[in-house]
Amino acid sequence: MSPDTPHKPDRLGTIQPAYVRPLDLKRGRVDLTHGAGGRASHQLIDSVFRPAFAPTWPSGWQDGGDDGAVLPDLPAVPGSATGGKLVMATDAHVVSPLFFPGGDIGSLAVHGTVNDLAMMGARPLHLSVSFILEEGLPLSDLLRVVQSMARAAREAEVAIVTGDTKVVERGKADGLYISTTGLGQCRPGVRLSGRLAQAGDAILLSGCVGDHGAAILSQREGLRFEAPIESDSAALHGLVAHMLDTGAALRVLRDPTRGGLATTLNEIAVASGVGMQIEESAIPLNPTVAAACEFMGLDPLYMANEGKLIAICASEDAERLLSAMRAHPLGREACLIGQVTPGPAGQVRMRTAFGGQRMLDWLMGDPLPRIC
Amino acid sequence: MSPDTPHKPDRLGTIQPAYVRPLDLKRGRVDLTHGAGGRASHQLIDSVFRPAFAPTWPSGWQDGGDDGAVLPDLPAVPGSATGGKLVMATDAHVVSPLFFPGGDIGSLAVHGTVNDLAMMGARPLHLSVSFILEEGLPLSDLLRVVQSMARAAREAEVAIVTGDTKVVERGKADGLYISTTGLGQCRPGVRLSGRLAQAGDAILLSGCVGDHGAAILSQREGLRFEAPIESDSAALHGLVAHMLDTGAALRVLRDPTRGGLATTLNEIAVASGVGMQIEESAIPLNPTVAAACEFMGLDPLYMANEGKLIAICASEDAERLLSAMRAHPLGREACLIGQVTPGPAGQVRMRTAFGGQRMLDWLMGDPLPRIC
Repeated sequence: MSPDTPHKPDRLGTIQPAYVRPLDLKRGRVDLTHGAGGRASHQLIDSVFRPAFAPTWPSGWQDGGDDGAVLPDLPAVPGSATGGKLVMATDAHVVSPLFFPGGDIGSLAVHGTVNDLAMMGARPLHLSVSFILEEGLPLSDLLRVVQSMARAAREAEVAIVTGDTKVVERGKADGLYISTTGLGQCRPGVRLSGRLAQAGDAILLSGCVGDHGAAILSQREGLRFEAPIESDSAALHGLVAHMLDTGAALRVLRDPTRGGLATTLNEIAVASGVGMQIEESAIPLNPTVAAACEFMGLDPLYMANEGKLIAICASEDAERLLSAMRAHPLGREACLIGQVTPGPAGQVRMRTAFGGQRMLDWLMGDPLPRIC
Repeated sequence: MSPDTPHKPDRLGTIQPAYVRPLDLKRGRVDLTHGAGGRASHQLIDSVFRPAFAPTWPSGWQDGGDDGAVLPDLPAVPGSATGGKLVMATDAHVVSPLFFPGGDIGSLAVHGTVNDLAMMGARPLHLSVSFILEEGLPLSDLLRVVQSMARAAREAEVAIVTGDTKVVERGKADGLYISTTGLGQCRPGVRLSGRLAQAGDAILLSGCVGDHGAAILSQREGLRFEAPIESDSAALHGLVAHMLDTGAALRVLRDPTRGGLATTLNEIAVASGVGMQIEESAIPLNPTVAAACEFMGLDPLYMANEGKLIAICASEDAERLLSAMRAHPLGREACLIGQVTPGPAGQVRMRTAFGGQRMLDWLMGDPLPRIC
């Protein structure tokens, strides 16, 4: 995408460049890119889901396009007190293979939804889980997944409180799929959204990128590297609580999952109507992951992470926030990777290690289907 | 099951008769009965899910084995007020075919979760939705499903506030699967659970049984009957609100979905440790559904319903509650179908139309996979 490609921001804040053709809702079909978290996924949301579901929203309630929904206040009843907005988030998990270095579909299903709540500044409280099982799935595999979920939930101090199970015939699923939904509660006064980045803000990253994607892919392809590559899958709400404790002027938190760091930065740039300037040399990268990505011809900036976050804050608070992040086990490698710029709106530019400028576009296509 | 089969109620209230073999968690495999809502489904929950997830629950919190989870109170913060317990419920939907007389997977996914909340006495407020789409799904089908969901949500006055989409390769799903999770709020003071039925209570049914199962099956088999058979899929919370307005001593509300009326009555009998005496002649049945079931060799008492409820209340309130139900469009055919008895615990007996006694056991096997 050249910087002068014409853009037309739509009513809902998404910019589809001119070369993206509208979805053919009459004759088109779902393809794997619709699940990849890139432009096609957003196009599907904007063309199909949002127009249908927006009329169901309470009047005055606004969809933030974020990882979860901040719910309207519950009707007040005298004599009963609570505080802090409720947040709801959901994730389907179809990762293949079911078990991989550093985790499995069960721990991932807990971390994925816990992190969606955490990115909203919410303390995760309750999870529901819905299983779609394939006839013939070994019960021992199911048990292993379920015990892994339970362990992840206990570690994250969330309760799995309700669930449902369906079974489909052999060949109609791939082992099992898990959807988790989380309910969390914000600290009173905390407001985070991808729409709140401001020119001049600092862009922080909690650690190295690409580990989850590289772990899944090397497992899938049977590749072995000198050092083992493990998924970074982890629950981030502890790190977030630590960050909120600083009182820093945090505007945006996002976990760069499908589509990776590059796509998530683009999402924020579009939602906030700002530009971004990133320094490639500042982005931490595990050397084995870097080597694996080079070998596989993939860009780690577009690979999924499951235990990393992007934080955007007022520049004067960046150092304080970085220190707090580095003091937490999940933020030890945290660093400043760039700045929010006034424009061009929706564009993320990166100064490469060689000093040139590169446009960081959204993920296109789906190089890694079923990464989460 | 003979009335003198030995029973061993386990810690969690489920009775597995002696002839049910324990799950072989080392070498066993998932089969379709695990998704059918009968004994095998319960066995899977008791052997795999509950033991794993119970350690994640807050101390003092008890799983009611109900359609949703009543959540512990949120931490109180002065100055902010709310009231009524929050309830969370989730359902996976894998119905095949996707479109059927009287509904589709989209409307069903809304009604299913709305009804789970309603059965807990909660007013449904918010839904999340997670889609698993098969590569190659016509977008026009997806749009039709999504618009149907939106229509059902608007009619039920619930907001679809957040969602997620994953895509799997051709052959790894069957068109699409939808998991919905709902958040609702109970009226202050309302407490309903399958554990609360008492000897002497009246058992009410809101209308005829088997319509949903018969509609799906005849669509699947390409059968045609004199009168069209339509699914009864509908949101029941309006009917429930109407019932709660009476102030009747309601103990249990349940929607007899998978496994049908017979299985749901058994679940309640086990959970409450009571017996039940049902009158076959009192159970309303659509004549075309009766004929279709006879033709297909299926028992309508075991067929899924998606817009009916069982209510158990103090016998002195039964008439008042019935009148209220009959005054609502979804309860016009409501009737008294039996009584709760002191024992034998966990057994449901039915006086047949010919005057004999029949044991109504749980659904065994899965005569109708993927009914919802």
